[in-house]
Amino acid sequence: SAQCDRCLNVTSLLCLKCTFCSLLSGVYEESNGTSRTAGMNGNGPSRLVDPLEDPLPGVGTYEDFNTIDWVREKSKDRDRHREITNKSRQSTVALLHSISDAFSGWLLMLLVGLMSGALAGGIDISAHWMTDVKGGLCLRGFWFNHEHCCWLSNETTFQERDRCPQWQSWAELITGKSEGPFAYIMNYLMYIFWALMFSFLAVILVRAFAPYACGSGIPEIKTILSGFIIRGYLGKWTLIIKTITLVLAVSSGLSLGKEGPLVHVACCCANILCHLFTKYRKNEAKRREVLSAAAAVGVSVAFGAPIGGVLFSLEEVSYYFPLKTLWRSFFAALVAAFTLRSINPFGNSRLVLFYVEFHTPWHLVELAPFILLGIFGGLWGALFIKANIAWCRLRKTTCLGHYPVIEVLVVAALTALLAYPNSYTRMSGSELISELFNDCSLLDSSQLCGYKQVNTGVDNSLADRPAGPGLYTALWQLALALVFKMMITVITFGMKVPSGLFIPSMAVGAIAGRLLGVGMEQLAYYNHDSVIFKGWCSQGADCITPGLYAMVGAAACLGGVTRMTVSLVVIMFELTGGLEYIVPLMAATMTSKWVADAFGREGIYEAHIRLNGYPFLEPKEEFEHSSLAVDVMRPRRMDPALAVLTQEGMTVGEVESTHFSGFPVVVSSESQRLVGFVLRRDLLISIDNARKRQDGIVSASQVVFTEHTPLLPPDAPPPLRLRCIMDLSPFTVTDHTPMDITVDIFRKLGLRQCLVTHNGRLLGIITKKDILKHMAQMANRDPDSILFN
Amino acid sequence: SAQCDRCLNVTSLLCLKCTFCSLLSGVYEESNGTSRTAGMNGNGPSRLVDPLEDPLPGVGTYEDFNTIDWVREKSKDRDRHREITNKSRQSTVALLHSISDAFSGWLLMLLVGLMSGALAGGIDISAHWMTDVKGGLCLRGFWFNHEHCCWLSNETTFQERDRCPQWQSWAELITGKSEGPFAYIMNYLMYIFWALMFSFLAVILVRAFAPYACGSGIPEIKTILSGFIIRGYLGKWTLIIKTITLVLAVSSGLSLGKEGPLVHVACCCANILCHLFTKYRKNEAKRREVLSAAAAVGVSVAFGAPIGGVLFSLEEVSYYFPLKTLWRSFFAALVAAFTLRSINPFGNSRLVLFYVEFHTPWHLVELAPFILLGIFGGLWGALFIKANIAWCRLRKTTCLGHYPVIEVLVVAALTALLAYPNSYTRMSGSELISELFNDCSLLDSSQLCGYKQVNTGVDNSLADRPAGPGLYTALWQLALALVFKMMITVITFGMKVPSGLFIPSMAVGAIAGRLLGVGMEQLAYYNHDSVIFKGWCSQGADCITPGLYAMVGAAACLGGVTRMTVSLVVIMFELTGGLEYIVPLMAATMTSKWVADAFGREGIYEAHIRLNGYPFLEPKEEFEHSSLAVDVMRPRRMDPALAVLTQEGMTVGEVESTHFSGFPVVVSSESQRLVGFVLRRDLLISIDNARKRQDGIVSASQVVFTEHTPLLPPDAPPPLRLRCIMDLSPFTVTDHTPMDITVDIFRKLGLRQCLVTHNGRLLGIITKKDILKHMAQMANRDPDSILFN
Repeated sequence: SAQCDRCLNVTSLLCLKCTFCSLLSGVYEESNGTSRTAGMNGNGPSRLVDPLEDPLPGVGTYEDFNTIDWVREKSKDRDRHREITNKSRQSTVALLHSISDAFSGWLLMLLVGLMSGALAGGIDISAHWMTDVKGGLCLRGFWFNHEHCCWLSNETTFQERDRCPQWQSWAELITGKSEGPFAYIMNYLMYIFWALMFSFLAVILVRAFAPYACGSGIPEIKTILSGFIIRGYLGKWTLIIKTITLVLAVSSGLSLGKEGPLVHVACCCANILCHLFTKYRKNEAKRREVLSAAAAVGVSVAFGAPIGGVLFSLEEVSYYFPLKTLWRSFFAALVAAFTLRSINPFGNSRLVLFYVEFHTPWHLVELAPFILLGIFGGLWGALFIKANIAWCRLRKTTCLGHYPVIEVLVVAALTALLAYPNSYTRMSGSELISELFNDCSLLDSSQLCGYKQVNTGVDNSLADRPAGPGLYTALWQLALALVFKMMITVITFGMKVPSGLFIPSMAVGAIAGRLLGVGMEQLAYYNHDSVIFKGWCSQGADCITPGLYAMVGAAACLGGVTRMTVSLVVIMFELTGGLEYIVPLMAATMTSKWVADAFGREGIYEAHIRLNGYPFLEPKEEFEHSSLAVDVMRPRRMDPALAVLTQEGMTVGEVESTHFSGFPVVVSSESQRLVGFVLRRDLLISIDNARKRQDGIVSASQVVFTEHTPLLPPDAPPPLRLRCIMDLSPFTVTDHTPMDITVDIFRKLGLRQCLVTHNGRLLGIITKKDILKHMAQMANRDPDSILFN
Repeated sequence: SAQCDRCLNVTSLLCLKCTFCSLLSGVYEESNGTSRTAGMNGNGPSRLVDPLEDPLPGVGTYEDFNTIDWVREKSKDRDRHREITNKSRQSTVALLHSISDAFSGWLLMLLVGLMSGALAGGIDISAHWMTDVKGGLCLRGFWFNHEHCCWLSNETTFQERDRCPQWQSWAELITGKSEGPFAYIMNYLMYIFWALMFSFLAVILVRAFAPYACGSGIPEIKTILSGFIIRGYLGKWTLIIKTITLVLAVSSGLSLGKEGPLVHVACCCANILCHLFTKYRKNEAKRREVLSAAAAVGVSVAFGAPIGGVLFSLEEVSYYFPLKTLWRSFFAALVAAFTLRSINPFGNSRLVLFYVEFHTPWHLVELAPFILLGIFGGLWGALFIKANIAWCRLRKTTCLGHYPVIEVLVVAALTALLAYPNSYTRMSGSELISELFNDCSLLDSSQLCGYKQVNTGVDNSLADRPAGPGLYTALWQLALALVFKMMITVITFGMKVPSGLFIPSMAVGAIAGRLLGVGMEQLAYYNHDSVIFKGWCSQGADCITPGLYAMVGAAACLGGVTRMTVSLVVIMFELTGGLEYIVPLMAATMTSKWVADAFGREGIYEAHIRLNGYPFLEPKEEFEHSSLAVDVMRPRRMDPALAVLTQEGMTVGEVESTHFSGFPVVVSSESQRLVGFVLRRDLLISIDNARKRQDGIVSASQVVFTEHTPLLPPDAPPPLRLRCIMDLSPFTVTDHTPMDITVDIFRKLGLRQCLVTHNGRLLGIITKKDILKHMAQMANRDPDSILFN
């Protein structure tokens, strides 16, 4: 159905979980009995407990697609911690338990780091091999990739390390010919065949086993970290399928990267490993601390940048990031980077994806082109977000969304068809970036280094030289590659395969940067006496490094798309290891952010969150309107009064017949003085349980929330005391509280709902969804686009 | 008086502001009329305004030594922003104003960066010169320092660059002799003379002009950033005097560093520059955002580590650190680092204080000594904190505190006397660390590189060699220096001169590390066939880098004292520029933190905050007890009921005769239903103003907080309407709210007070001071040690 399609990006495909959409909607809509039972099943066989003594299984848990209550979760954890600390004074076993509990967080981090590092290593190696398989096979053993195959060969010189007899292209393998138009077409066809094969496998696997495995996963992880529940999004099936399909998708040559999905993979690892420790298994807030750290691990292994990873998690992904999590993230990120280094997937014992070393410092004049790149990055970022969101919306609302497999195959075929003839699009995204970042030395045989040799008399192998025909060809090809990448990335991101955005964005920026860099270099070479270059760029000197421009461009474009700043600069700085280039990078990313923000303040991830209607309260944006709590709360002026429970006098039957998912409890309906707050889910579970275990609980039994049992007529059935499931400290604000303060409270404390009072009397309720709807309304957007609670 | 001495570390000296101590104490103690008037004077000539239309000058400001209300401040700023945005649609001037307002934050950051960088450069250059003046003078011009003096000389070779005829020691200058025991004694005496001179000047200047300029300033800045007001702590006099005395103190040879005080200097710059922008001048919360960034700038210029500075501010100093501040801090830190580099105080165009380059990777086995260094650092950190706090307490409680000048002179004399004979203590702290970090090459003439030359046949200039007699002497001297530094730092930190802790702590760690490193090197050299070293450390190889051990030791000791982790590792990593050594550094700092935490969870700054009784709610520590809000709130069970105002019916006279500094306003004293909260300061200012400007306001006039004017008898004086100064959205919690949640709310929202209700009726109030007192009580500390509100 149409409503179902809007529900969740991934489910719109398979509609496996579509039933959920209509069932779950929050405090003001009816909650559903079956999902409640399903929620209870997870806790194993129910024990025979006194309902007043011990929390019932199911009480205090959440339904799928619901928001958690951070305050309650953290309070629960502190209670648990307090209990363990108190017990630890009594016996040695309890003391040991307390110590092991204290260190379980660090142990978990170690395991997350090890597992994610190992998985990332595996993904890197397989993706490398499979990307090469599109071109040919190694005769020495099909499991060697091109580079490895030729390294083992003694016959090749350093110059020709790309070509060795052991590595045969498909044309050579099938027809025995390696040259000529027929071989070219043969290779071309095989390239397209493998691209289709890999992408078909990827999309089929995702469809069949784990619909959540598609996309980059970062928007959903942001939402989950902000306190939302999506069951199975970080489960073992998602992990397995995402790992496999990520390799397939990357190898298929589609314009996507593996960096974003690696964050998802690391979070899956963390979530699965959380099940080993009670502390994290049972507490949604504690688990989110681990997931924040896992996001850092993901970036750490993606780029080999542990500090950048931690800052990425802090700046971009996390919602609640206490200092403890900072330390643990850093530890986990280091462990992961270390594990990855031990696996050594790039075969050069470098931790980082793009290791570059530049030899020339930059000059202040160069800030102008760097800022130009920043403007380009910002413009492209804003344009990309608009175009991609429009395309994704089209996919959701038209029949295009019904044929995801065909969509992927068509895009893969198109990509392969257009990419093969151009050597810069044929190579994988990370190879391309690596080549663009590289500084040309005299020995370099790459086309990008096709300069004319001039004898300047000065023995400087890195001096600026005039461009030769090879370089001109390369520039043309790069310009074509730029247009191609810009187009194809827009339609690729959001398809039903795992797809990251980092590499394609960086590739676009790197191409633009390199083009500008070579332009500047030639300008400097031919005009070294002009005003601009005089004084710092004499003839025969190496003053412009086009590789640096590529790096700055890559940072600018990635910054424009994701709106990262500090973390991006740190990642870039860890990639190159040079503190010297922080200023150019910073100038470009800040410009890029400012320019992109002028067109719309959302980054790509926030835009996708909004597209999917997740309840995400953006922590970066200030609430700018002057509304008061009374304008946002329910009930509205004309609505019937707020549904409340009284602390005594209501019967079980009356309580059961209600249909909101949470109720304030008041002293009496006349005074409207607030006592507490109770969730319908907890109420129903408790009543259900009481009916089974407690004698005499019938529909006419009184439900009592007071401390003392009220005096009842002698013939009345025994009362049901439910004070224990009531939240005695509900959050309240007054009706005059400005909404900016209320939003701040919701954000900082992670509330789910808040009650509104006037002069001490209960007036209404504000839920997170109400706030998001109000914000949507204020921004002239459809308030019904917020789907979940 | 004794109470006055406890009041504030710095004021205990001069007791200039001692009158404040007894006057200011918060919601439950009497506030004072004179300080109120003083507060009003700051706002210039009072305007003739309608008291109901426009906020009065003085309403909404704070008294000295009081806690700010973050929520109110941030709300005020959002109102201001909203107004500017609304106006910007009306005219071009307003639009320009709106744009300049949006960019004023960035401009301010730029200015802070430039000013702090310039000041830091000046401090570096002057301190360098004055440190050298203790030894002699340059004949070429007295303004040259030793290094610079000899650089200009053509007569010296590279080997003898320390000695040149132009640089003459005092003995040479006075007696003409440069050798012999007499010259030695002459130089010794001059060294002591200058040390006494400099330290005397430093302490006298601090006493006379700016008592707040003493110490490192970080504890106070932490407190200020958490929302406390100390007027003048970041003022222009403090800046001027701190800058001058910092140079004097560092040059006097005392065991102190300039890194902590540079944070204070940067914060002073930021505070002063804030006055240029209305947005920041008038808003305490916004100003604290700038100060957070300034803390980052301070560390950035101290170590040349911009990223480390930002993380230091985030991890160690700041309280409220939104992402916006992160970006701005980073920007300001970069600008400052760049400015410093342009000034080039070290004369080597390096940004960083200790630039080192190691050539050998570390081996996994070496983790054992690194962890050992971590344990040493942790133990030393814990011991240092205990000893230093005990010494500072002694200074406060005994007559020692009455003679700060003599104390400084005695310590300076003692330091100079003991330090001169040992060349490692004679040199400045940063030179020592620099030398210890340094890797020995064959050319190195330093005593630390006094290895025996062996011919291993392998041409490796860095190979491990056996220690020679020079090295053994150096080791002995280092061991003595270690003991000396450990002792003298304890009594130096906390004296009435500007004193940082970073350099002395690092020096202790670096010495310990170097000793262990040389030990390991010799062990490896003589036992390279043993199980431990076999396989990675063959003869003639360079496997152990003692400089790396010094670096790890420095990080461990600094970590033990300050409990920094991530920021410390990043600073260290920025110092060396090598990603390779993150793991050893991390292992050592984490071990150090764990070991030190086992002895007490407070770092040195928190310990000093507690010693001074500042109201600081530690954001890192969890509240571990199971108290409820009702246990902490005032009034206590036996106390008289809470003083409240009713929304109508009270007269001006009744209101004026109250003596608490804040009042909840209720509907009526019977119902106790809460309407709002009003501060006595605002009340008195408004009444004062109304008496002057409004006709007929007498003591019998009714004070009215309702929206409508109540019906009054015809002969009654006109009522005074004060709804506009009432906070209509006071924070409330129920009496059943666990204190851990309440503490969380206070921390995250930055509250000053919170009202407690029971079933909708007002029951009591909790202030930040109440919480801190409760926490002190729970930890078996004296609750009266919390002095301020």
